[in-house]
Amino acid sequence: MFCLFKDGDFVTLIPLFRTKRKIRYTIKLKRGEKLSTNYGIISHDEILDRDSGSVIQSHIGKAFIIIDSLLEDKIKNFKGFKHITQIIYPRDWGLILSYANIKPTEHIVEIGTGSGAFLAFLSELISHENTILSFEKEEERLKIAKENLDKISVPRRFTIKKSEEIKKIKSGSVDVVFADIPAPWNVVDEVWRILRGGGRFIIYVPTFNQVKKAIIKLIRSGFVDIRVIEGFVRELQYIPYAIRPLHRGYIFSAYIIFSRKSYVIPKKYLEMLKNEI
Amino acid sequence: MFCLFKDGDFVTLIPLFRTKRKIRYTIKLKRGEKLSTNYGIISHDEILDRDSGSVIQSHIGKAFIIIDSLLEDKIKNFKGFKHITQIIYPRDWGLILSYANIKPTEHIVEIGTGSGAFLAFLSELISHENTILSFEKEEERLKIAKENLDKISVPRRFTIKKSEEIKKIKSGSVDVVFADIPAPWNVVDEVWRILRGGGRFIIYVPTFNQVKKAIIKLIRSGFVDIRVIEGFVRELQYIPYAIRPLHRGYIFSAYIIFSRKSYVIPKKYLEMLKNEI
Amino acid sequence: MFCLFKDGDFVTLIPLFRTKRKIRYTIKLKRGEKLSTNYGIISHDEILDRDSGSVIQSHIGKAFIIIDSLLEDKIKNFKGFKHITQIIYPRDWGLILSYANIKPTEHIVEIGTGSGAFLAFLSELISHENTILSFEKEEERLKIAKENLDKISVPRRFTIKKSEEIKKIKSGSVDVVFADIPAPWNVVDEVWRILRGGGRFIIYVPTFNQVKKAIIKLIRSGFVDIRVIEGFVRELQYIPYAIRPLHRGYIFSAYIIFSRKSYVIPKKYLEMLKNEI
Amino acid sequence: MFCLFKDGDFVTLIPLFRTKRKIRYTIKLKRGEKLSTNYGIISHDEILDRDSGSVIQSHIGKAFIIIDSLLEDKIKNFKGFKHITQIIYPRDWGLILSYANIKPTEHIVEIGTGSGAFLAFLSELISHENTILSFEKEEERLKIAKENLDKISVPRRFTIKKSEEIKKIKSGSVDVVFADIPAPWNVVDEVWRILRGGGRFIIYVPTFNQVKKAIIKLIRSGFVDIRVIEGFVRELQYIPYAIRPLHRGYIFSAYIIFSRKSYVIPKKYLEMLKNEI
Repeated sequence: MFCLFKDGDFVTLIPLFRTKRKIRYTIKLKRGEKLSTNYGIISHDEILDRDSGSVIQSHIGKAFIIIDSLLEDKIKNFKGFKHITQIIYPRDWGLILSYANIKPTEHIVEIGTGSGAFLAFLSELISHENTILSFEKEEERLKIAKENLDKISVPRRFTIKKSEEIKKIKSGSVDVVFADIPAPWNVVDEVWRILRGGGRFIIYVPTFNQVKKAIIKLIRSGFVDIRVIEGFVRELQYIPYAIRPLHRGYIFSAYIIFSRKSYVIPKKYLEMLKNEI
Repeated sequence: MFCLFKDGDFVTLIPLFRTKRKIRYTIKLKRGEKLSTNYGIISHDEILDRDSGSVIQSHIGKAFIIIDSLLEDKIKNFKGFKHITQIIYPRDWGLILSYANIKPTEHIVEIGTGSGAFLAFLSELISHENTILSFEKEEERLKIAKENLDKISVPRRFTIKKSEEIKKIKSGSVDVVFADIPAPWNVVDEVWRILRGGGRFIIYVPTFNQVKKAIIKLIRSGFVDIRVIEGFVRELQYIPYAIRPLHRGYIFSAYIIFSRKSYVIPKKYLEMLKNEI
Repeated sequence: MFCLFKDGDFVTLIPLFRTKRKIRYTIKLKRGEKLSTNYGIISHDEILDRDSGSVIQSHIGKAFIIIDSLLEDKIKNFKGFKHITQIIYPRDWGLILSYANIKPTEHIVEIGTGSGAFLAFLSELISHENTILSFEKEEERLKIAKENLDKISVPRRFTIKKSEEIKKIKSGSVDVVFADIPAPWNVVDEVWRILRGGGRFIIYVPTFNQVKKAIIKLIRSGFVDIRVIEGFVRELQYIPYAIRPLHRGYIFSAYIIFSRKSYVIPKKYLEMLKNEI
Repeated sequence: MFCLFKDGDFVTLIPLFRTKRKIRYTIKLKRGEKLSTNYGIISHDEILDRDSGSVIQSHIGKAFIIIDSLLEDKIKNFKGFKHITQIIYPRDWGLILSYANIKPTEHIVEIGTGSGAFLAFLSELISHENTILSFEKEEERLKIAKENLDKISVPRRFTIKKSEEIKKIKSGSVDVVFADIPAPWNVVDEVWRILRGGGRFIIYVPTFNQVKKAIIKLIRSGFVDIRVIEGFVRELQYIPYAIRPLHRGYIFSAYIIFSRKSYVIPKKYLEMLKNEI
């Protein structure tokens, strides 16, 4: 089996030579186009029909490995993907998926499409007869998110709608809801309505203040099995004789709150709401 | 839509009352059976046909929320799942999946089935016409892993084979290889052979020494775009008026090495192999 | 120079043999006394006049290295030191000292003596003509803290007083105040009064809620150059051929808030107090 | 008590107005001099005789809080202090001090003066009749370190010498040795010689490879009670209604190895040196 690049494929170019900063280019192949880099020009045509993992040279003889792009490349390095909001990065995609145990055939709702990065991740994973519903309040974002997902050729397993349309979803019909909006407490009751019993609700918020306000609302509205985590990832310098963590990097993205729909509110939860400081 | 429990389903019971330590029971429903807890006996029959998220009482009147079990519950709390090796936990499942961008229709190979936890996670996610090949050296583990996956009703999208059978895989036919074995450097050449160009190879090892030895071998064998990470997850106490990270917990699981098959070995990589200290 | 053990010295015994769990004994030498361990009896007399770093055997022939005790040993392993409150551990002692740049000749006030661990640390470091003032509200704690410091032979460079006596301190006469109490906002105004201009105020609190409340009060009361940190320390398994972080351990102790007395309140700080969510 | 600024004092200026990036200036007051900033000129003379914590304006009316400088300011923000090597930052100063329990009257040796930052920290803390011996191999560094410490007015409780002079130190006469050099294994035997029994040896190295090599040498040379840690510090955004960790920052500085001189080598340590991978 070979993975030969064809028109419309995404390819990432990694320099074979030393560069001051870590550089990689991610492009969508289009017959006749050219990529201009600080290290010379590369024609898309020369990449077409080449195998992933092989080598190409720019017009000034600089060599690059050409490799099929992963989703992270498309979102971080491809110029067509616009970051209109703080996106959710791969370090959190996976944690959400695995802790919430999201499965390909489940009914999934996203509240807050943002730039569409997490929706892209989910769309690649769900079953082909399934559709994720994603809701976005702002008309402009909705438009750009759609374009983003189009440009990076995400499989069409999603529908992005205006926020108010969430009301049309049948009660108890959803397995998983993921919310990445500034005031998630405002949607908690509506989420409870659309989830089935035991359905999972995941909230993604950056500040402690939002965590607090969200939890109070979750407890009062019939969500149980609450779990709040933050994940972080440290990258290592992999020079074999000088292995160590990188000195600087991301140390925080957001808090992730997991919870599940229940038909009862535990008394021990309500007791936690006393003693406000 | 209701999620009514039926025979063979997994259900997790979460106490509605206070307990000294965090307790949850995960069982597989079987008509006629009973669950004995420190808080009384619960008959499986009473759970059958109930909705996920509802409440049940033990024979001494202690109440529990009954909720459909997530994969983590089945692996950590269900007695049928035997931990014969250090398993890979959800905090790493997701990172591997998202950083390696594993997709449901890809050809996936696992080397080192272990207890089968990660294989269970992948099997739930891949496409139903797809099959993951997992290789295990030790006969006894192979047997228990199979039983484990059977007991927790993982969809049959995997085949577990004896390690030597990896030789039968056609060259260049695999998209992703994941290895969780003590000496991954021993399989690097074989993995290069079976991967397609650009195919991803993920190595999971707990010690720095293994990271070093694995990287040296990867570099020499034609793997590029190497990335080494460690992920960790911190859980928060979610009492709304005393929110803080938990004081103690897991602070390390393993290092995860990502790499991709290339047809060239970058000179700058080889230069890193000089200057051994 | 030799460090020969004499009556009243602290010595820590570290087994030369393998033990299931990490074990070490810390005792105060007293002629005629005996230490009973799971590995035999050791007479204090045999340790007297021996050098730190040498070896001793129990009556059943089990060998231990005897070494002069560090402060951490005295506080964590010596039975005479009672933990009546959550103590501040070495991982935070040093951060407080270095970030606040506490110097041996400065006037230092502690609010909340607790078990006296941090006071012991400071007392070992300050100049011998200097005295730290430590205030404790609860009579019982005050008594036990005094006994604790006595028992571990901390140099007498501290005075522990009842909380209300803080009022007697002259305005503007203190360089550094450290508070480890549940409601530090209640003392902020009093601390401002006793500190000199530019004096440092350090608050130690475990929850986010306390951080929030403390900061609001600090801002309103004329503290500037606010800095909030959390420190953590990860220990490594040091087996040379299997070096890795330990899997489990402490991942959080408390938040440390640093601030300095100012005669003005920055408008930009007050603006942060709008937009409460 | 007032802290009025006088000639030769260090003062840090913190803007009272909003700035794009966090800005602070640290200067040494000298009658007649002027500080030029992007926000106007400030004459040193106007700061003299003012109180720490008060306010000053530049010639264009921009206001700053003037506050006595902490050591961290002098080292990070004062232009007179030259960073000729990677310095050890406050987050590690304190950990070293507290874990090694360094006391003001002890005999302390530093190997690898570097820029002199850690030596400055120690010099502020030790007793005034005490002297720290610091050794530096490179003539040029030795010179600059001396100048650095001079410029930031560190109390003269240190002597910096050429490395070879360590041989003149009497055997068994030192309590604590701290080494921050690339190949610490080369000095282990010499350090053992100069330390008293039970004396503490602290090694500061950034890579895993150095940790491994250092530990092997420590074990073989009679050091026990080995402890390897890494510390890290996360800073919080302290806007009261949006409290959260900062997204980016330092996530690693170095590994710190603590050990103590022993007259025996534990057999269980030597066993760790088998099974090299």
